[in-house]
Amino acid sequence: MSKLVIVGTVAFDAIETPFGKTDKILGGAATFIGLSAAQFDVDGAIVSVVGGDFPESYIDMLSEKGLNVEGLEIVKEGKTFFWSGKYHNDMNSRDTLATELNVLADFNPIVPDAYKNSEVVMLGNLHPMVQLSVIEQMEDPKLIILDTMNFWMDNTLDELMNVISKVNVITINDEEARQLTNEYSLVVAAQKIMSFGPDYVVIKKGEHGALLFHENEVFFAPALPLEEVFDPTGAGDTFAGGFAGYLAKTSDYSFENMKTAIINGSALASFCVEKFGTERLLGLTDRELHTRLQQFKNLTQFDIELT
Amino acid sequence: MSKLVIVGTVAFDAIETPFGKTDKILGGAATFIGLSAAQFDVDGAIVSVVGGDFPESYIDMLSEKGLNVEGLEIVKEGKTFFWSGKYHNDMNSRDTLATELNVLADFNPIVPDAYKNSEVVMLGNLHPMVQLSVIEQMEDPKLIILDTMNFWMDNTLDELMNVISKVNVITINDEEARQLTNEYSLVVAAQKIMSFGPDYVVIKKGEHGALLFHENEVFFAPALPLEEVFDPTGAGDTFAGGFAGYLAKTSDYSFENMKTAIINGSALASFCVEKFGTERLLGLTDRELHTRLQQFKNLTQFDIELT
Repeated sequence: MSKLVIVGTVAFDAIETPFGKTDKILGGAATFIGLSAAQFDVDGAIVSVVGGDFPESYIDMLSEKGLNVEGLEIVKEGKTFFWSGKYHNDMNSRDTLATELNVLADFNPIVPDAYKNSEVVMLGNLHPMVQLSVIEQMEDPKLIILDTMNFWMDNTLDELMNVISKVNVITINDEEARQLTNEYSLVVAAQKIMSFGPDYVVIKKGEHGALLFHENEVFFAPALPLEEVFDPTGAGDTFAGGFAGYLAKTSDYSFENMKTAIINGSALASFCVEKFGTERLLGLTDRELHTRLQQFKNLTQFDIELT
Repeated sequence: MSKLVIVGTVAFDAIETPFGKTDKILGGAATFIGLSAAQFDVDGAIVSVVGGDFPESYIDMLSEKGLNVEGLEIVKEGKTFFWSGKYHNDMNSRDTLATELNVLADFNPIVPDAYKNSEVVMLGNLHPMVQLSVIEQMEDPKLIILDTMNFWMDNTLDELMNVISKVNVITINDEEARQLTNEYSLVVAAQKIMSFGPDYVVIKKGEHGALLFHENEVFFAPALPLEEVFDPTGAGDTFAGGFAGYLAKTSDYSFENMKTAIINGSALASFCVEKFGTERLLGLTDRELHTRLQQFKNLTQFDIELT
């Protein structure tokens, strides 16, 4: 078991889907990553910032899940980051209705002293300079995982490329991989991204699963075919959190173990989308996760005689 | 080993991709299906029609691959079916430049007597009335596999639904499954299609792989991530041909064996797209197929401890 540092947003989300809409509920990349990683009983710390409007009960809940919240700064006079979005009928695209940075605008992340020697660092989607600051506070990390998005490619590419050069793993979606490399083939794009620094590239394809590239090898994790996607918010972060959490729990950062980590991330993401926000993750049992992992095994395992 | 009847087009294709263009080359659903199934040394017969302009050398080549061509009618005074298309840069969409039905317009399929007792029937994409005629000529088929497309849904839906009610397996792409059922979720769409008749539904997702549904079970076969897709023409037919050919070779029509059949189909399709038309399939060795099947195994197999 290794310690895990998670940096990312802790936020309010207001979500509208064809199935309904929510008021401001708990959201944010670090929240989903933390709750997903917590499924593995890891010793993880959340580094983030909220405003005075953030309910203490949410912080207590994160603590009860075993997450250290020393690094969750509370700016009493400020307001918590707020995001609002509306999903289209196909659930694959959405409109952002509001983004209020609030306290996130001046966020200066502080990694708690007790976690500066963590082996695993999960950099959730945030300004690359914030991600860089976390990297610089770590003593001797064994595995730095970066999640990012096209917004930072469009607006802070130099800073992002600097962060990319310092991480071991990057998770990125298919369109972003293409944008970052100007290559259509995901195989070629992944090779190019590895030349920027990371040893491992995870390309997320949403309902089409995820690909893990390392040197000349590739592994594919399917998404579970679902009857219904209720709310996709946080699915990518939940995937990354399950991946990071499983690796921290096992302290094994090999390609073989990353395959299992990705399957765990995919399984957790398949739960996340079943209800609004964090609701499904909060009630998730080990037995449910095991049952779903067995479904992933059934989904992909086949017999073939190779002579 | 069971006998296999294949009905479908035998055609001339003229193809343009970002990598180059061809004159009229050998194409057609039955051609790709036959060449793919032939990889398993099955006893297969092609039922189709060509014109007097069709080179004898192509027919000899099909024979040499072990395919019976008694049911390949030659209309001396007619012209062979011709299709021409141009692929866009992403290779996922294409414009049809020409479709000349020619001899296909009056095609009346005749299954050779020696193949009327075949256990496996592969109905390649064609007018549903032609597919129906083949079904009616069979004595006691164990497995009828249907491939179709949106064109027949748009123009001959009643006839198509009649054929669907009589087959064991349908292969269809994701958009077509949605169109046929008016359901967005592929899980729900597959359940609905099974209620129309087939016990097995294969949903093809192109570069995103394929799903096999049966009762409440599902299996997923990935597509091999490729550096380059040279020409996608015939990939779906090659997939279906590998699936049907493997099942005919093994005479085992269980869900478990269909998983292996789908992986074989996916492996063969991954070769098909490497060169123009049938070129890659024609030169394919058993050793190459075995190596690729191992790649599919590496791509999807993972260790997980389930307690």
